[in-house]
This record gives sequence, C-alpha cells and structure tokens, in this order.
Amino acid sequence: MILISNDDGPSSPGLRALIKALSEVDEVTFFIPEGPRSGSSMSLTLHKPLRIREIEIAGVRGRVCSGSPADAMVLAHIILDKKPEVVATGINLGDNTSLQDIFSSGTVAGALQASLLGYPAIAFSKRIPDEYILYPWAESGDFDTPSRIAAKIVRFVLDRGLPPGVSLLNVNFPTNVSERTVSRITRASMIKYEHQVDKRLDPRGRDYYWLWGKRIQSYPEDSDTKAIYELNEISITPLSNDLSNVQLSSDASSWLKDIIERLS
Amino acid sequence: MILISNDDGPSSPGLRALIKALSEVDEVTFFIPEGPRSGSSMSLTLHKPLRIREIEIAGVRGRVCSGSPADAMVLAHIILDKKPEVVATGINLGDNTSLQDIFSSGTVAGALQASLLGYPAIAFSKRIPDEYILYPWAESGDFDTPSRIAAKIVRFVLDRGLPPGVSLLNVNFPTNVSERTVSRITRASMIKYEHQVDKRLDPRGRDYYWLWGKRIQSYPEDSDTKAIYELNEISITPLSNDLSNVQLSSDASSWLKDIIERLS
Repeated sequence: MILISNDDGPSSPGLRALIKALSEVDEVTFFIPEGPRSGSSMSLTLHKPLRIREIEIAGVRGRVCSGSPADAMVLAHIILDKKPEVVATGINLGDNTSLQDIFSSGTVAGALQASLLGYPAIAFSKRIPDEYILYPWAESGDFDTPSRIAAKIVRFVLDRGLPPGVSLLNVNFPTNVSERTVSRITRASMIKYEHQVDKRLDPRGRDYYWLWGKRIQSYPEDSDTKAIYELNEISITPLSNDLSNVQLSSDASSWLKDIIERLS
Repeated sequence: MILISNDDGPSSPGLRALIKALSEVDEVTFFIPEGPRSGSSMSLTLHKPLRIREIEIAGVRGRVCSGSPADAMVLAHIILDKKPEVVATGINLGDNTSLQDIFSSGTVAGALQASLLGYPAIAFSKRIPDEYILYPWAESGDFDTPSRIAAKIVRFVLDRGLPPGVSLLNVNFPTNVSERTVSRITRASMIKYEHQVDKRLDPRGRDYYWLWGKRIQSYPEDSDTKAIYELNEISITPLSNDLSNVQLSSDASSWLKDIIERLS
C-alpha cells in the first residue's frame, strides 16, 4: 500500500495527478492537511485537538486533518489498519530545492516524518513559474507527466527499498517535463533565496513586515537548484534524517574534548 | 554581539535566565516570537504579514514578532544593524533530545535557521518534570545554574568558533543541574516518544483527536536521551544542517545509478 500526503491540501492539482498515477502502481490512500500548509516544516500540533474527515479524490478514499503534514503522517501511522510500504508526498506546487526549502517545506517534512517512523519516503515537488508561486492553483501547469515519472520512482523503491544510509529521496521536477527529460542525482545547495523583508504601513498607519526572497543566480555544481533552474533536469537528492551523523575530523574531536574539559 | 531567541515567547523563565547570564559575556539582544511556539519546527510565514514590537527583558532591549522562531531569526538577520557573532536559543522549557524533537522543536529550528544564515548557533533546552510539560511556567525549576553553564559554552564558541563540519550544537540539561553536573558529547537518538493519539468526543458528540507520546524506556549508548533520562548529565550534540551529506556505500551508488537508468 502507498500512503500519499502533501502540504497544499485536497484541492492541489499536484496531489490529484499523483493519486491517479500511483493508483496504477498499487493500492493507494492519502492522509493530508485539510487546507494549504506551505512552509509548515515539521511542526506538530501537541497543544490542541485535531479533526479528521474522510473524503474522496480521483476515486480514491482518504483522510484530511486539521493539522500539519507531520501531524497527518503521525495520525496515519497510528490510525491506518494497513501500514504503507512506501510514503510519497506531493506533488508540491513549487520546487523544494536547497536546505532552506527542505527544512521549511511541509511536503518534505511529511516525508521526513515518515522516515522517522520507519517508512521509505519520497517527496515530490515541481517548479512553477515565479509569478504563480504560493497560490498557484489554476496556473500551475502539467502534473500528469511528472506524476507518471513519480510512479516509476515509487515502483523502483517498492521493488528495491531505499539505498543503505538514505532515509528519504527529495525529488524535484523543472517547470517543463516530458518523458525525455533527463534525471540526475544531486546534493542540496545551502540556499536558493536571499531573504528579504518589505516594511509597509497598514490602513491604520502601523508598520507590518512581509518576508520574501530574491532567488540567487549562481548554483553549486551537482546541486538540486542547478538541475532545476539551469539544466531543466529532474533532480533526485538522497537525504539522511540523521543530523547528528557528523564526520568529525581530529580538529573537531579535540574541540569537543576541550569544551568538556572547560565545563568540568 | 550575542543574539538570543526561543520558542516559548517572552514570559519564559528559561529565556530570562539566559538573557541575564549571557549579558555578562557580551552585548546581547533578542528577537523572539511574541508567544509560545512550541513544536513549530522551522516553519516560515510567507503568506501573511508579521508584526514586530520592541520590549525589554531583564534590562535588555530586544524584539518580539508575531511569527515563528525561524521568522524571528530571518527578521533579525535582515533588520539588525549589528550582526551577531553567535546565536543562542532557549533555554527551552523541556528537553529537545532525539531527532523527532530536534526536527519539530522551534528552539532547535531557531538555531538551525541561524546556521543556514551562516551564524554559529547553539540551542539550549532543559528537561522539566513530565507533569509540567508544555505549559510549565511556574513550576519549571532553576534556570540560573544551566544559564551559567550555557554562558561558558557561548564564551567558548565566541573564542573558538564551532568545530569544522558542525553547523550547530544542541545542548540539553537534565532536570537537576549543579555546577558539578557532568557534560558529555552525544549523538541524537531517533525517537524519544512512541506516538499516541487519544480519540475523544467534544460536547456536541463529535470526534476529536489529541496527539501525545509515551516516552520509550530504552535509549542507545552515547545518545542524548540516555544522558538526560538515565545519566543525569548535560548532553552536547554536534549537528550538521546538511541532510544531503550522505556517505554512499558502493551498494547505494549502484542503486542510484540504476534508478537514473530506469528513468532514461
């Protein structure tokens, strides 16, 4: 069984196309937030109750909940009678390239949460033209072709599992995808946007601030951002969820020894 | 200059104690969420405006904002005239041990966001008795001793920077801390809680669900959870923010080659 989630909620055309394509691979269900939760990261709702409702999308039964993508994943893990063999999230309306996006994205967080629960997980996202970013419902382009490619990747992971040491795959599609679009293995770049803030005045004359980002124009070799923004290729980034798996040089080890001494 | 943030908001006794102790190390300011944001992870507010207000805590001027800890960090990065030499978050009311906590915590996310912006960063958290978890204001115990120890760690990082390959430190204090409490370098364990959900009925007879967790009772050697829950020691976990820094075995490499072939 394949469990699908996302962070754009039930109306997303990326979700609908993914559900349709994965239905041809195996039995499918979904457990998603009831509305858009972009940028929700791996937030968990521990202080207030959650609602769950059954709905149907593209002929498939699934559930929406009032929480975040990570909430949906934890609820699915506990509530579903049948456990998934693989978890797929997306297809997100907008690419999730660079560590900044990976950490703040709800779509990647759904897959990351799934990986912490022990499921092989894949996050799918697709670049959309800049002018449609954030609420891009109608204008977000073709998701059928990327979904067919996503289905191939999911089938491969169902057959072979994930590679050793890899907790999840972060897959990004460029704006225009055909069956001939090339795929490549990438690494996450550090940032994609240079953070900006607009300071404005509300109708009552009080300050408010709006966060946004100006996309940087130079990307590292072999990076996810370069694949999506320069090469027009599909980017597959193997990720580990173990932030503490740090390769310590002898310098680093002696630093750590020194701080323990300083504190004793 | 030291920049302080947290996810418990301005009333937290852990914040107040940290501000006081770090004020004796260097010039200090803070940029924090205006109220509690536990479990907010690295969520970013991109769809709606944010408010910022100046306030004073423990004789120090700083700012609160209507967003998340990651929002506060990004705003501080853009707005502050003077850039910090180090960023410290906390002291969180409750420990942030295990990858599940690390990814969902707002306090760790503030430090993680700082690391993505290029600042050396340290997240500080303290275990509090289970019965006070989540809204533990009055009963959360002594933060002065942990803050004095935090000040030693911050001073060390100001002197020496972080070790090579390390993006941030995740520091956790046990419930009872004295000047003689031992510190140790740890790794993050995978989980600390087994996820649970309570299904209940609201006053109108409709279902609602409440997420919580039952703490597991067995922790890996050298783990952050073991240090805090069994050894009563201070846990210092070096973290990398590069999720894509995966050491690929030859098996993993051939897996990745195979999937690219399958897709071409």
